[in-house]
Amino acid sequence: MAGPATVTMSATLAADEALARRRRAGEQVITMTSGEIGLPVHPVLRRVLAESAGQNAYGPVAGGSALREAAAGYWRRRGLDTDPGLVVAGPGSKPLLFALLLAIGGDTVVPVPGWVSYAAQARLAGGQPIGVPIRPGEGGVPDPVALREVVTRARAAGRDPRCVVVTVPDNPTGTVAHDGTLRELGEAARELGLVIVSDEIYGDLVFDAAAPAVSPARFAPERTVTTTGLTKNLALGGWRTGVARLPANDLGRDLRTALVGVASQIWSSPAAPVQSAAAYAFSEPSELTAHLGASRRLHEAVIRAVAGRLVAAGALLAPVRATCYLYPDLEPLRARIARRHDVHTGDGLTRLLLDRYGIGVLPASAFGERAEPLRLRLATSRLYGDTDEQRWAALAADDPPSLPWIRSVVDRIEEVVADLAGPADPYPR
Amino acid sequence: MAGPATVTMSATLAADEALARRRRAGEQVITMTSGEIGLPVHPVLRRVLAESAGQNAYGPVAGGSALREAAAGYWRRRGLDTDPGLVVAGPGSKPLLFALLLAIGGDTVVPVPGWVSYAAQARLAGGQPIGVPIRPGEGGVPDPVALREVVTRARAAGRDPRCVVVTVPDNPTGTVAHDGTLRELGEAARELGLVIVSDEIYGDLVFDAAAPAVSPARFAPERTVTTTGLTKNLALGGWRTGVARLPANDLGRDLRTALVGVASQIWSSPAAPVQSAAAYAFSEPSELTAHLGASRRLHEAVIRAVAGRLVAAGALLAPVRATCYLYPDLEPLRARIARRHDVHTGDGLTRLLLDRYGIGVLPASAFGERAEPLRLRLATSRLYGDTDEQRWAALAADDPPSLPWIRSVVDRIEEVVADLAGPADPYPR
Repeated sequence: MAGPATVTMSATLAADEALARRRRAGEQVITMTSGEIGLPVHPVLRRVLAESAGQNAYGPVAGGSALREAAAGYWRRRGLDTDPGLVVAGPGSKPLLFALLLAIGGDTVVPVPGWVSYAAQARLAGGQPIGVPIRPGEGGVPDPVALREVVTRARAAGRDPRCVVVTVPDNPTGTVAHDGTLRELGEAARELGLVIVSDEIYGDLVFDAAAPAVSPARFAPERTVTTTGLTKNLALGGWRTGVARLPANDLGRDLRTALVGVASQIWSSPAAPVQSAAAYAFSEPSELTAHLGASRRLHEAVIRAVAGRLVAAGALLAPVRATCYLYPDLEPLRARIARRHDVHTGDGLTRLLLDRYGIGVLPASAFGERAEPLRLRLATSRLYGDTDEQRWAALAADDPPSLPWIRSVVDRIEEVVADLAGPADPYPR
Repeated sequence: MAGPATVTMSATLAADEALARRRRAGEQVITMTSGEIGLPVHPVLRRVLAESAGQNAYGPVAGGSALREAAAGYWRRRGLDTDPGLVVAGPGSKPLLFALLLAIGGDTVVPVPGWVSYAAQARLAGGQPIGVPIRPGEGGVPDPVALREVVTRARAAGRDPRCVVVTVPDNPTGTVAHDGTLRELGEAARELGLVIVSDEIYGDLVFDAAAPAVSPARFAPERTVTTTGLTKNLALGGWRTGVARLPANDLGRDLRTALVGVASQIWSSPAAPVQSAAAYAFSEPSELTAHLGASRRLHEAVIRAVAGRLVAAGALLAPVRATCYLYPDLEPLRARIARRHDVHTGDGLTRLLLDRYGIGVLPASAFGERAEPLRLRLATSRLYGDTDEQRWAALAADDPPSLPWIRSVVDRIEEVVADLAGPADPYPR
């Protein structure tokens, strides 16, 4: 049995660390690599964590009942009836996703483009990722028509796909799949006998409150496992806390048993003091709902400002509906970028942006696409300030892009994209 | 590729949860299942965690430099020169051990008896456990002579053992392998080309300060990975924090790269607020050294009291030198237990102790041994009291077993072992 010699470090985390080193060395860099949310911890959560500092018992592997009940309430308020006994908490939704892939076994269908770790996790769990393209403008969900074809072909070739991972809303594209597509996905998964693992970590970061993201658990409740956490909505990535919701049937109960078995052998239980704070957060008290609302407005204002500059400079971009991610395609600028910089791929463009301009982004190849397209993923979640004072001011601002420390970054991005392509050809063919 | 249908829940954690349910239902139970340390968090650690509650960034996958430097200092003070760049922190030493097995690949040699999760982790990582018996009274370390034979035979049969896991000091036996055995182990591992993964989570719980446990890294520094954490010495199991130390050579650097790659895909980083508290703890300030000393004296006093009663009742027991575990063999009482209870195996004896007497222990089979021997593992680490007040009093006591809440449990254990066997045969053959 071969070792995991092919496991490379998470592209987002690796790029983050490289940028942090450059910043410490005194360089001016703009960090748009990982979607770490550059906002402060809300004081009430700091207080609950501090008050829970005496908690040192492991508690149940699946997490304590307070956290599981709070998470069940969170899902119920979003239209998904949830049994706390079918909730499993873990040290982040990332380990829960990995443990789910181990518990389900076999190969894993992933969207292309898709979050950097799905394919790596599928391999670490002993299977293989099987990529299926998204529909244009509907990131995170494999096109259900293509899904049927690819899975049928994979099975004929002796592979064993057992689940499909979806991201609703999506990282890397900042889009949200349409309800109709999710319904089709549910039908395809049912026909194909696939479990749907729905990563909904961005569920609360949809900009239009009148059109919230819909979970595939609405359309295929019998086979959908949902995961979320507090990393994105409350900027608690460094606290490492996540929850999974399993279907209320034999499949769900069997998966829970396997998931808790894996969790017991790999991580024992989520950190106890963090659990208490997470339980409080999932109960959604008004001060946190207000804080989340302010965060969402800030994300939207800044991402729209950056998106506007990119589109004005000639990039192609699907309408962004959620998250803090942009996935522009600079194909219209290909000839000019090639002439000016001898750069012909997304990977090359990413290196150029870092080396020449000090801007950290990720190429489409980090998300399972080929290296050639001039597609990049930009995370705008760390443009809100370098200090807590600036970040609180950004949260409170009526027009965050007008704050000097945000405006200067947005202007710099515009300037760089302009310089990247050089002046437009005065005599286009 | 088959799913992990065989992953069962960690025996210790499963038994803990079963006992917690009985206790909540109002039953009187004595919990000697897992080695969770039933002692309070030291106030200074509570304070540092509370002060760190504003930290929400992921930070480096391997843990921040403050924690890695503190851990390096911890090892240096124990005679192991350590480069902080070759330290990797994680959410517990358990996930680090799992990630190491994934990073190393192949099959894994484990001691028999050995901690419940090594074999399960080896399987989850895609390999198989290969059991090698310990030498009597030297738990945690596969007999180096048997190791050579078993590994040679396994390779001839097409298996691919690449590492050997050792536990120094040992869980489940509470013993410590002799230096000579560790030296032999290092030589055997060198000949066989095996990595040594040395789980030293109990390193600070050796009772005789004049004879501390020695790491195999002393004898085979070029191939030994050492892991530890704060779960046992400072009772911080529920905080989930651990560290690994890699060899200062190409093997160590390659393993670090693979380990950080796996960590980046499974857990991202250790929880940030906990990292700060762990960094403080690994710096070993005097108040925590004193607290650890008091804890160690308490562990020793209680474990010796329980051991004395077991031996007086006729159990066989290797001299306990460390930890809070006893691994008695009730073979001398087999005929009497069989006659009185129709119980003939360690598994049956474990059930009898729980059902008839409300005492939770684990059978030898949970540690990779056969079900037949009447060997049990008893953890004495939760006999110190039910309240923080009792636990602080136990830590401060000159003679902890004379405290009423500890004495009553020790007396009850004696009474149960006597009742288990019934009166001694008046006419022994």
